[in-house]
Amino acid sequence: MTLETISENRSFGGVQGVYRHSSEATGTRMTFAAYLPPAAAAGPVPVLWYLSGLTCTHENAMTKAGAQEHAAREGIALIFPDTSPRGEDVADDEAFDLGQGAGFYVNATETPWAPHFRMWDYITAELPAVVFDRFSLRRDAQGITGHSMGGHGALTIAMTMPETYRSLSAFAPIANPSESDWGRKQFAAYLGNDAAAWGGHDATLLMREKGYPGDLLVDQGSSDQFLDLLRPQALAEAMAARRQPSVMRMQEGYDHSYFFVQTFMGDHVRWHAERLRD
Amino acid sequence: MTLETISENRSFGGVQGVYRHSSEATGTRMTFAAYLPPAAAAGPVPVLWYLSGLTCTHENAMTKAGAQEHAAREGIALIFPDTSPRGEDVADDEAFDLGQGAGFYVNATETPWAPHFRMWDYITAELPAVVFDRFSLRRDAQGITGHSMGGHGALTIAMTMPETYRSLSAFAPIANPSESDWGRKQFAAYLGNDAAAWGGHDATLLMREKGYPGDLLVDQGSSDQFLDLLRPQALAEAMAARRQPSVMRMQEGYDHSYFFVQTFMGDHVRWHAERLRD
Repeated sequence: MTLETISENRSFGGVQGVYRHSSEATGTRMTFAAYLPPAAAAGPVPVLWYLSGLTCTHENAMTKAGAQEHAAREGIALIFPDTSPRGEDVADDEAFDLGQGAGFYVNATETPWAPHFRMWDYITAELPAVVFDRFSLRRDAQGITGHSMGGHGALTIAMTMPETYRSLSAFAPIANPSESDWGRKQFAAYLGNDAAAWGGHDATLLMREKGYPGDLLVDQGSSDQFLDLLRPQALAEAMAARRQPSVMRMQEGYDHSYFFVQTFMGDHVRWHAERLRD
Repeated sequence: MTLETISENRSFGGVQGVYRHSSEATGTRMTFAAYLPPAAAAGPVPVLWYLSGLTCTHENAMTKAGAQEHAAREGIALIFPDTSPRGEDVADDEAFDLGQGAGFYVNATETPWAPHFRMWDYITAELPAVVFDRFSLRRDAQGITGHSMGGHGALTIAMTMPETYRSLSAFAPIANPSESDWGRKQFAAYLGNDAAAWGGHDATLLMREKGYPGDLLVDQGSSDQFLDLLRPQALAEAMAARRQPSVMRMQEGYDHSYFFVQTFMGDHVRWHAERLRD
């Protein structure tokens, strides 16, 4: 596995790096960012996966979420993957919410997306192999979080593979995509019109069916401009109906931006670190 | 207003008292408990109303909730009212969840309950007049909380009179009584069969209609034996749908008992104290 180093910068006593590699899952070159805290110099540390939202690359949260300070303090690594395959040979759409930058963390089965849009496999299998090969990380201590489309990814991936993702949180997740215009359009395009194929990618439906064996933290801004698309009330109802150990916080006045994410990032990093320590 | 002192005991540097008075609202003698923190000696302090659940008197939370230590630290007074009128001349029912010990914080309009079961007026008007006359409390800094039926009372009273109750929380509230056997039976008995009269006493319906101008904290145990009657999922959905600033915590493994209440009492007292300080 050849890993190209794009950049490495000292950050809060650790290293913030950006790396590129050839992906078998997507058939493209993929870029991701990784933050290694000072504690990683002394031995393997827990790792928190941060999945980003629509239009984002590996770079947005790395530069705007303010997570490194908290990760350094808690001794936990951060991985910031990209949100889709990219390139001139990769299918795309004029809309910002379909195609490049909008992978929705699924393996596409439909034309023209199927050849490259395999973000589920990339995030859950290939990229983990890359980072565990390269960095000093504890494979047995992985948590996952994300924002918006990335919150959708974090919730659906962790509920599907809870033995791998031992801690879980989300910022303003797309919580019920099969009932939202952020979901129906993309699932139809990537997965086809048979909604039976969508259920495994809807956090509310997964919560109703199986839940998560740990507890989880969800933050949502009350002034989020996309609340009608995110549908936090569906996930809130499903969590309470299931008696899912959880904390659901409706944060007054916060919108969908990184100002919201960075305000609560410290709480989320601490949440994961407390659950991933042995 | 004659207030009979039943007992006064030093507690965490303050005074835990029990008092009795004649109530015009209920037409009976009513007993309540009040805790005054050490800070009350120096001037008026904020006050937190704690409404109890089915079968309780003023005494249960006073002795089992462990609230005094937190109230002393935070400099906030506590009032523990009774849950209904009582006496040989007061109507009752063989069931534990109707009649004496089960006032549901409404003003009954139906026979045989109407003459004495006026707990809404007692809690929101008459008892405040009594305690503000007797103790050094800030009328402009009142919060309200409660457990089970008392959580129902706290939520419905605060949403109806938010200018009076400036902070709000609940422990395992009866969250949607008009859709529960803890509610339909009692509302039919006290208020009559026309469900139009019930809406002002259903926290979920009030949340859908008007919400609460502040934020609120709700704790619910995931192993509560009465979850089907409490219906937290209805309130959770309504809070999220409304974008109500809130924290809803599903606490893993906790049941409906005072062991649950006392575990999180510190968080609730702090929640109120932080919001009632100027």
